Amino acid sequence: MDALFRPKSVAVIGASDRELTIGYRIIRNLREMRFRGCIYPVNPKGVEIQGLTTHRSILEVPGEVDLAHIVVKNTMVPQVLTDCARKGVKVCIINTAGFKEIGPVGASLEDELVRITRQTGIRVFGPNCQGIINADPEVNAYCNFTFTKPEPGFISIFSQSGGVGEAINNRLVELGEGLRMYASSGNVCDIQCTEILTYWKDDPGTKVIVCHLETISDPDLFIKVVRKVSSKKPILAMITGQTDAGARAVACHTGGIAKDRGREARVLRKSGMLPCSSFEELCQAARSFVHLPLPHGNRVGIITNTGGPGVIAADELVNRGCEISELTEKTKADLRGTLLPEAIVSNPIDMLATANAQHFAATLSAMLSDPNVDSLLVNFITPFFVNCEAVAHRIAEVWRKSEKPIMCVVMTEKTHWAPTLKIFRDAGLPIFEFPEIAATALAKLTAYGLQGKP
Amino acid sequence: MDALFRPKSVAVIGASDRELTIGYRIIRNLREMRFRGCIYPVNPKGVEIQGLTTHRSILEVPGEVDLAHIVVKNTMVPQVLTDCARKGVKVCIINTAGFKEIGPVGASLEDELVRITRQTGIRVFGPNCQGIINADPEVNAYCNFTFTKPEPGFISIFSQSGGVGEAINNRLVELGEGLRMYASSGNVCDIQCTEILTYWKDDPGTKVIVCHLETISDPDLFIKVVRKVSSKKPILAMITGQTDAGARAVACHTGGIAKDRGREARVLRKSGMLPCSSFEELCQAARSFVHLPLPHGNRVGIITNTGGPGVIAADELVNRGCEISELTEKTKADLRGTLLPEAIVSNPIDMLATANAQHFAATLSAMLSDPNVDSLLVNFITPFFVNCEAVAHRIAEVWRKSEKPIMCVVMTEKTHWAPTLKIFRDAGLPIFEFPEIAATALAKLTAYGLQGKP
Repeated sequence: MDALFRPKSVAVIGASDRELTIGYRIIRNLREMRFRGCIYPVNPKGVEIQGLTTHRSILEVPGEVDLAHIVVKNTMVPQVLTDCARKGVKVCIINTAGFKEIGPVGASLEDELVRITRQTGIRVFGPNCQGIINADPEVNAYCNFTFTKPEPGFISIFSQSGGVGEAINNRLVELGEGLRMYASSGNVCDIQCTEILTYWKDDPGTKVIVCHLETISDPDLFIKVVRKVSSKKPILAMITGQTDAGARAVACHTGGIAKDRGREARVLRKSGMLPCSSFEELCQAARSFVHLPLPHGNRVGIITNTGGPGVIAADELVNRGCEISELTEKTKADLRGTLLPEAIVSNPIDMLATANAQHFAATLSAMLSDPNVDSLLVNFITPFFVNCEAVAHRIAEVWRKSEKPIMCVVMTEKTHWAPTLKIFRDAGLPIFEFPEIAATALAKLTAYGLQGKP
Repeated sequence: MDALFRPKSVAVIGASDRELTIGYRIIRNLREMRFRGCIYPVNPKGVEIQGLTTHRSILEVPGEVDLAHIVVKNTMVPQVLTDCARKGVKVCIINTAGFKEIGPVGASLEDELVRITRQTGIRVFGPNCQGIINADPEVNAYCNFTFTKPEPGFISIFSQSGGVGEAINNRLVELGEGLRMYASSGNVCDIQCTEILTYWKDDPGTKVIVCHLETISDPDLFIKVVRKVSSKKPILAMITGQTDAGARAVACHTGGIAKDRGREARVLRKSGMLPCSSFEELCQAARSFVHLPLPHGNRVGIITNTGGPGVIAADELVNRGCEISELTEKTKADLRGTLLPEAIVSNPIDMLATANAQHFAATLSAMLSDPNVDSLLVNFITPFFVNCEAVAHRIAEVWRKSEKPIMCVVMTEKTHWAPTLKIFRDAGLPIFEFPEIAATALAKLTAYGLQGKP
């Protein structure tokens, strides 16, 4: 796995100088992102590519090769893979498509690849795959043809589909989140999801794992391995191809055949993965795990300055297994002493739109001190008659010191209130646009926080 | 209703020159958005407000008053309302809070308001409400204290909660959609949702209605009235307070009591409203109804240039009552003749990432000509090795001429591909970021298209 994610040298077999080819883009990504190792373009014509010395065959490359990309025509891949094994290459990423997913002809080509790996010990990632990224600044291995250029961060992404992986990565970049490692595996003829998850379990830079799956080939092994990983790190997973039509599409896509449709979903639950039903849910939950502590119970306090969103948050939390805290009499008395007389001192606390920074700070503190509250969801709509920047500063202050997670929803017009939003961003506090999104993410934090507890 | 939505004159009782008050903001909104009628500030001090002549009491206003905002203290509201009735004001928007939602004292104040409306015939919108907007350029009635300034458009929004209404409005503005009319009703002591929906049924500028509800006070009447509206125009609805905790929060918020939790959801279905479970679903479906024709059946063709998202779209569509079309042999033969040999010619059609503008155009046309296809979902991820702007132009061309709805998902990095995104925007073609969002919206178009059909 180190050869795949921390290669000291990368060969690109099928390298090209034509801009719109994968053989060009992989080399360009590696160079643009300042890969710390050697790059060996391989092309039978042997001309210089992107200013790098090019070799006619992998066998002619002078140094050791940890990782080789194979982007040649599908029918040529078995021979190239055999050459790689002879050269002593440790692992190949086969980006080329046209294997199991296109029917019997491709399937027999893919069987040939599997046979070569068994005979020679060389490992294969793919075929029909996007590749990997290790954004660790000591490695900078952007071994793929992605269009996203994520900054280093704490989220690692495993995706069977390159398109789905790309979309997850792109959305996380939009949300301001960085990436640790990325692996988009395509047909999975050799290196399995389970090996990669196990590798990430022991990677100190990975705080949370995001996973997209279409098929699980060995459920028992999967459950056994993934349970170990998920007991150490949260794994958020989206499994697709769960309808007949979806399963047929999967068969054409990465060649898997899901005979029993509900099976994947059951395996997911047993493995301790946290199931997600959309890109947005997956990405928003992932950033919550990066920035927030885990709650020790499922009782949530809701604070809002406008009633409707508090109701929506309560509905969503209860539907996802949380409880709305019964506040202690002390908390209620404290709040009655602080808030406006018309405010609703019953969870959800509706402080009313006129609530100012002092009201927010006092309410957050009172709720956090309540032993019946395990986590908070704050819904802040930015009224024009309140000093919203002061509110943001006070929320950020409380947030920084809190050992209980605080999910913060900010409903606003983003141009006029940009300075307010910047205060949250500068404090490193993730904000959510809608209460139901924050509630869904909080329910996942809670489920993971309570996993394995009585 | 014309007095509420097309007032020739608006009084603001409790007008103010202090910037951070509601009595200031309403007048400022009216003026900034160029209200076409007269504005009469009312304040007992009688000094000039925002450069406008101010009257000490509504009774001193010289001209006729169609609509009066009441923003004075809750205990003073009954007297002010009585004065308005004496003056001959047709309708009052009571923005003031502190009624049914705060308990018995407020409830008896609210009963008093109801009594006055019955005795005098004056109508009341609210209390505890945000107000209304009519963005019709011939009216420009921004009678509320919102922070969103929507452009004129085709979507009308009814929301019990001001915060929820504001968030819907704001999200639609972000998505580039305009507003027709807006009404945020708060406690609903007099003018009901049903009256407003009926008014919008006959408003030629309203194409689609978006609705947020917490309580339905008279289900039989509601079903009877709303069925008439929904048979003429689609109504997308989010109903909240559907858990015990949520229902308790509703009681504190707008004073409703939902005794039977599932009831509202059942009423919604019977009324022909299209239920939505999140802000995003509501807003994305609304823009789809504005820009797309209705499908005549539930059979969807899916076209993608990367497999994974096609699978996700298929799952979501099937889960929401659509079918994935069985293509005719003619369509399949046409496609085999056009697409790359490795492409998957089976719905979802996976054209592969290398598909170019010609492939997109030919596939869209072939699918649209297939009698088994009622609507299309196109998933376009922008590969660096394809001329994406050409693809966008060709999709937009086909889209403009199509009588079947085409939902278009564009998965991309928004900076580098801004020119491609601009082509879609300039063509007036709504694009979606994720396949599951487009699929959900398409399922709603389909459900509405088939409503009342065998």
